[in-house]
Amino acid sequence: MGSDTNARYIPDEADARKNIVELCKLLYDQGFMAGTAGGMSVKDGGVIYITPSGVQKERMRANDMTMFDTEKQQYIERPDQIYKPSACVPLFKALHQHVDAGACIHTHSINAVLITLLFKEEFRISNIENIKAIPKYTEPGNLKNTDTVRIPIIDNRHHEEELEETLIETLRKNPGAPAILVRRHGVFTWGSNVWKAKVIHEALDYLFNCAIQMKQLGIDPDGEVGSEFK
Amino acid sequence: MGSDTNARYIPDEADARKNIVELCKLLYDQGFMAGTAGGMSVKDGGVIYITPSGVQKERMRANDMTMFDTEKQQYIERPDQIYKPSACVPLFKALHQHVDAGACIHTHSINAVLITLLFKEEFRISNIENIKAIPKYTEPGNLKNTDTVRIPIIDNRHHEEELEETLIETLRKNPGAPAILVRRHGVFTWGSNVWKAKVIHEALDYLFNCAIQMKQLGIDPDGEVGSEFK
Amino acid sequence: MGSDTNARYIPDEADARKNIVELCKLLYDQGFMAGTAGGMSVKDGGVIYITPSGVQKERMRANDMTMFDTEKQQYIERPDQIYKPSACVPLFKALHQHVDAGACIHTHSINAVLITLLFKEEFRISNIENIKAIPKYTEPGNLKNTDTVRIPIIDNRHHEEELEETLIETLRKNPGAPAILVRRHGVFTWGSNVWKAKVIHEALDYLFNCAIQMKQLGIDPDGEVGSEFK
Amino acid sequence: MGSDTNARYIPDEADARKNIVELCKLLYDQGFMAGTAGGMSVKDGGVIYITPSGVQKERMRANDMTMFDTEKQQYIERPDQIYKPSACVPLFKALHQHVDAGACIHTHSINAVLITLLFKEEFRISNIENIKAIPKYTEPGNLKNTDTVRIPIIDNRHHEEELEETLIETLRKNPGAPAILVRRHGVFTWGSNVWKAKVIHEALDYLFNCAIQMKQLGIDPDGEVGSEFK
Repeated sequence: MGSDTNARYIPDEADARKNIVELCKLLYDQGFMAGTAGGMSVKDGGVIYITPSGVQKERMRANDMTMFDTEKQQYIERPDQIYKPSACVPLFKALHQHVDAGACIHTHSINAVLITLLFKEEFRISNIENIKAIPKYTEPGNLKNTDTVRIPIIDNRHHEEELEETLIETLRKNPGAPAILVRRHGVFTWGSNVWKAKVIHEALDYLFNCAIQMKQLGIDPDGEVGSEFK
Repeated sequence: MGSDTNARYIPDEADARKNIVELCKLLYDQGFMAGTAGGMSVKDGGVIYITPSGVQKERMRANDMTMFDTEKQQYIERPDQIYKPSACVPLFKALHQHVDAGACIHTHSINAVLITLLFKEEFRISNIENIKAIPKYTEPGNLKNTDTVRIPIIDNRHHEEELEETLIETLRKNPGAPAILVRRHGVFTWGSNVWKAKVIHEALDYLFNCAIQMKQLGIDPDGEVGSEFK
Repeated sequence: MGSDTNARYIPDEADARKNIVELCKLLYDQGFMAGTAGGMSVKDGGVIYITPSGVQKERMRANDMTMFDTEKQQYIERPDQIYKPSACVPLFKALHQHVDAGACIHTHSINAVLITLLFKEEFRISNIENIKAIPKYTEPGNLKNTDTVRIPIIDNRHHEEELEETLIETLRKNPGAPAILVRRHGVFTWGSNVWKAKVIHEALDYLFNCAIQMKQLGIDPDGEVGSEFK
Repeated sequence: MGSDTNARYIPDEADARKNIVELCKLLYDQGFMAGTAGGMSVKDGGVIYITPSGVQKERMRANDMTMFDTEKQQYIERPDQIYKPSACVPLFKALHQHVDAGACIHTHSINAVLITLLFKEEFRISNIENIKAIPKYTEPGNLKNTDTVRIPIIDNRHHEEELEETLIETLRKNPGAPAILVRRHGVFTWGSNVWKAKVIHEALDYLFNCAIQMKQLGIDPDGEVGSEFK
């Protein structure tokens, strides 16, 4: 029941854009991409494929993706390109570079937003089985269920690109962190491929949801086991 | 990540009624049109297409739409017409005329109804990233995330047509408002085309949902950043 | 925006069982028929079609329905019949007879169950637009939005058939009531055809949901307009 | 309205793996298997089919299942096998053996997790109609609605296999219990076939949900009938 998401779903090059289309539709259907919120990117060889800006994520097509050449460090211009790149591009690029992410997912999950209003410096939850789905910061493998999940929270800025510096600094201070929360904004998660990023996003949102409901019931998400009955 | 919803989805004339059918089915599936609640309209050249009255919105067909000729200012009568026009018609017509809406969406969203019980004169929320999805009142472009969204609330009346005068007056006092809440009733949103109206509706409902949950957690949706930790 | 649900969806005889199959699947998908809970019946000429007992409602087929001959007052036996009739049969039969229902829907909606723990004698809500979807008790047409919806609540019994007497008595005391709540059990709704019953069920569940959330926010669902701001 | 789930859905041998695929997809869509959480097993003759470890449950295929030979007490090795068995295997095997389960379902249902923080030794709820969906411990047939559902809660351990001993001991102390809750972890349910296990899982989760909402409204899920109005 770990999170060793399986071999079959490692995307091949041809599938990078199809995977983005499929996953964004799913994230919209699950309520994670209302309006035109959120976005994602997949790195495939020397190209990063990125969702375009201001687009309904459930209606995108493979050809709508923005493409960035990591060697030339510039966008690949195409005659049929009609959308401008997502404002998240600098952040996605930073994640692909600094944490060697194969795929990044960014959503405005309401659970994530509420968590940043309930926790100040970092989200903390412990002693929930689903914690096993979250990878350890620096060692191989996943956390134990008695470990504490820690997700750093950074403050929001006017423009996504202004978040880049804080994001990189936070990643340096928290090497191996599996995600970053942005206060009053949402969450960034990543993984070595698109499905691993999806699994982290889902498992974290489950834990955010759990923690919010625990708080509403007067239970400390990071409290000692058994303290809820005292 | 703005709300510059994209060119491809600007409806052409042939699609006006198909778009209504598709969007009403989606709004029903998302819980926004339970029973026979809500409705929408699309202006296409000199014709306004409007959902009929008392119909299950997920089961409508393109031919069920009521058609209103804006030049002759009268309904286009058709031999196959079996439904009477929505009670919202005067409001939709006022919105198409006064705010030059290409499409209007009206739902009885429970989040919208609850918001009108938590806010008296207008809904206010600030410092949430998704605020960027909401257009500015009078200038081009969208709000900043640190701006305050303001959605006027008007009191409900017995009949939808009685709301017309207050609606127009409120639009005059709040030029460029992207939506109007009706107390204990629901929300009216609009946009230059059907997909822009959909995006505003989704983004606003996300903010209503956020604000309700913030209130339940004792956090002021329009409070100063950081006040939640004092 | 009334609830004059439209002509097209009046079921013809051939469709009675197909309509039950379609609607039960929808009610399951919406969370109203978890496990094997709930059931429904449609009267079509001299036959009442009834969902069988203990069956997963989303997996039924047209041939699974129990058939009751209202003239002979007995079940129509068929060689391919493998399920026994629903325990709700006496209640459905009473509703078809006493309120001349064309279709009855019974669900264990959690909203309905919670409402019966928050209201003692009857559910009451007023001044919500969606109230217009609920028919008046004895006059033609629907309630005004300023009217009070009143749904009688009866106490639960061990067996559904034991509810029959109280149900009939309650219908006599509340002629024209559009539904009956059963405490700690669920709701019975009905209509002249299957789609009208569906619309009432959806519109009522919306009002139950609204009232529960109002109570949680400290607002009286049957309070004076404006009392929420005092 | 019992839970006598019907004959048609008793899986034949050929269908064991197809049933697992179908049901896991459904459980994912209903939010019960976020990330790669949860799993299930079906016993068919001398073989137990088990979901593999760390796999997205909505994307599995029939050939992905691990197969365990109950006679030889060893896995059936196949050249195309790419996944390792679920960490739940010892628990599923114990359930197939000790309670003669035909199928076991294990989820990290958030409702189940929260219930284990609200109840100490066992989950208890009474006087809710849906209780009739839960089988009696040792006698044939299902509970009455006035009976008390009791689901034992055991404490979580680091590894699922460490739960085996406590699970078996708890089953011995509670012969005929239809499910076991694991604190801060989730729920195990079972039945004589896959659909009966599904019905128990759904009916229990409904009761968990009900109990959580009752607690939030200040009502005791195991209180005397009428005590909510005192």
